[in-house]
Amino acid sequence: MSRLVMKFGGTSVADLERIRRVARLVAAEVEAGHDVAVVVSAMAGKTNELVAWTDGAGAAAQGIPSSDDEYDVVVASGEQVTAGLLAMTLRNMGLRARSWLGWQVPIIADDAHGKARIDDIPPEKLAAALDAGEVAVIAGFQGVTRDGRIATLGRGGSDTSAVAIAAAIGAACDIYTDVDGVYTTDPRIESKAKKLAKISYEEMLEMASLGAKVLQTRSVELAMAYHVPVRVLSSFVEPGEAPGQGTIVCDEEEIVEKRIVSGVAYSRDEAKISLFGLPDHPGVSSTIFGALADANVNVDMIVQSHARTADTANMEFTVGRRDAQRALEIIRAVQPQVGFEDVRVDEDVAKVSVIGVGMRSHAGVAKSMFKALADKGVNIQVISTSEIKISVLIDAAYTELAVRALHAAYGLDQL
Amino acid sequence: MSRLVMKFGGTSVADLERIRRVARLVAAEVEAGHDVAVVVSAMAGKTNELVAWTDGAGAAAQGIPSSDDEYDVVVASGEQVTAGLLAMTLRNMGLRARSWLGWQVPIIADDAHGKARIDDIPPEKLAAALDAGEVAVIAGFQGVTRDGRIATLGRGGSDTSAVAIAAAIGAACDIYTDVDGVYTTDPRIESKAKKLAKISYEEMLEMASLGAKVLQTRSVELAMAYHVPVRVLSSFVEPGEAPGQGTIVCDEEEIVEKRIVSGVAYSRDEAKISLFGLPDHPGVSSTIFGALADANVNVDMIVQSHARTADTANMEFTVGRRDAQRALEIIRAVQPQVGFEDVRVDEDVAKVSVIGVGMRSHAGVAKSMFKALADKGVNIQVISTSEIKISVLIDAAYTELAVRALHAAYGLDQL
Repeated sequence: MSRLVMKFGGTSVADLERIRRVARLVAAEVEAGHDVAVVVSAMAGKTNELVAWTDGAGAAAQGIPSSDDEYDVVVASGEQVTAGLLAMTLRNMGLRARSWLGWQVPIIADDAHGKARIDDIPPEKLAAALDAGEVAVIAGFQGVTRDGRIATLGRGGSDTSAVAIAAAIGAACDIYTDVDGVYTTDPRIESKAKKLAKISYEEMLEMASLGAKVLQTRSVELAMAYHVPVRVLSSFVEPGEAPGQGTIVCDEEEIVEKRIVSGVAYSRDEAKISLFGLPDHPGVSSTIFGALADANVNVDMIVQSHARTADTANMEFTVGRRDAQRALEIIRAVQPQVGFEDVRVDEDVAKVSVIGVGMRSHAGVAKSMFKALADKGVNIQVISTSEIKISVLIDAAYTELAVRALHAAYGLDQL
Repeated sequence: MSRLVMKFGGTSVADLERIRRVARLVAAEVEAGHDVAVVVSAMAGKTNELVAWTDGAGAAAQGIPSSDDEYDVVVASGEQVTAGLLAMTLRNMGLRARSWLGWQVPIIADDAHGKARIDDIPPEKLAAALDAGEVAVIAGFQGVTRDGRIATLGRGGSDTSAVAIAAAIGAACDIYTDVDGVYTTDPRIESKAKKLAKISYEEMLEMASLGAKVLQTRSVELAMAYHVPVRVLSSFVEPGEAPGQGTIVCDEEEIVEKRIVSGVAYSRDEAKISLFGLPDHPGVSSTIFGALADANVNVDMIVQSHARTADTANMEFTVGRRDAQRALEIIRAVQPQVGFEDVRVDEDVAKVSVIGVGMRSHAGVAKSMFKALADKGVNIQVISTSEIKISVLIDAAYTELAVRALHAAYGLDQL
């Protein structure tokens, strides 16, 4: 019998009626002959409620010993509730089932509480339960440290739990969500967006990093590393209705019909920081980016340009919008040491990206992009590229226009 | 340093402000030189919410494999949340603290899910944490079975957790609640009720069994068996205010000033079942009470009397009001076999009891009771006695009248 991990997010288990719908989807896979492990998130809204309580109780307050381990104790309770309720519901439908908490599997994690990484999942206990014909309902998002404390994986961590468990027990992984697959772009912006039948791990990873919210980045990295076949599909189907084929995330070689560009992603979570009149000598960049790195501020796109006068330069880069004000303070603190003239923050920007493994072998992708944007009068502020994506930073007001223009330019509405 | 277990119920930790109040009480005991373990219940209302979900998901539904183990997974999450939040709050006040779940201590319980009993509490880990000066915040109401599943102790189980932990680590046990001690009777019925400075384990046990809700019966049994000094006191004190002396529950020998009667308890959770025209031959009682026992219906007070004609008898007994209709069905099912004439249920009854270890050496307690009730025109339907209590079943409408009459008759308002 083939093993299957099914993962359901918070909106899919938001109440008892939806949990029953999830149970019917699980029962259908059991009937189809699979040995099934289910990974569940907390009911939608529950994690926020728990986090608000920990805020009130002073999680990670300044100047006191870290409370992140206790934050995890509180927040992990949300998935525990869902796992128990789904196991009960499955039993009521006549299936054999039981819940598994992180410490019971065990899902061994490091002690970076609140954003822990999975170290190891000894598969023996789960495998024995599955082999005995019992559905394993596993609380997502949580693990246990080697000294026996609860650790959570950070937001979106249930995707990562599911893929890691699939890798550990040699299963395929179906990620159920509120959309029926991965689209060429966000259908709320471009109604002509098409669902992709398949997408490569690398493309999915770029899509996730660049703003598409369908899968959590870390889970795609894991799937790629362990060649776990992942499928994205919708849990919002009526009783008796099949969930459809969704989108398969797989190795590039398994995709027969190659495309140059697979998708257009966008993100409004960026802020641009501009530095003017930097002295043009070695060590300036390392001072600035060193100070930001020390404060855990991630820097993304960077360009440097020489100013009109020969002895100073200007520099622009992007940070997460949440980090923008903190980044500004850090930069102002190093101003005496670095000696630039001025710094400005612009939060009114968006990053738009085209992604496709076909870029590796096709020239001219960047040229088409710049032309399509220029034709619509969209000004490009910063550019960054990798082997399989091109990202541009633009005025946020042009986001939808740019997404639609690029979607059309690469023929994605013709798939 | 002396060890102290402090237990706080659901109303004492109902929100973050109350949790801060609890933290201040804990801090005061730490400052006074105690090594402190705290046992907490779920926030008031949380357990009911979780239980409602399990009902919706079909906990213990008819004809399916037991879901009681999953019920425990869901319901135990409530205490987990409170334990984490209190540990955080204590840290914010500058104390060293961490939470302990049932499986982490471990609190080893049998697998009677939903009403498990504690088998063993290996004290080593807790003792090491306390010795290192760390406050141990323990989730009440929960344990772990020997095969690693969560088990809950049933309603009121956090009292039992606290006393069992105190016994395991050699500590005294302070039970904080919403009243400031154990009273001679319910102050809501008799404003002249007096707080007792001390009460014996045996009296407390009878009080709890007979309707006083201040301590859970099982916790008193444990305290008595292991000679754990228990104190009942109020958590509802203002910042800076001491919680008062409360009531000490201890061995009879430690109570210098003996009383004949220590308290008057009452319960409206009874129903009376009357059987008429029973054939007067051996085996009748064992058939009826055997059938009730098989269905887990507890029978309390029993009287049998001969009817006017010589060859039949009447019988009356009480059951919990929740069980009354089920008991009626069971009795009707054995009617063909037993052959009685009629059966009636009366839910409009109350049990009123006087309790006191002094009864052992004093005659006349029953006589005073019957006279006091007769003087007020209260008719006694059934009587039952033990070495240290006398209970009578009366018309529920006379409950308050009877309680006040007995309270005065034994001079309890003069203490």
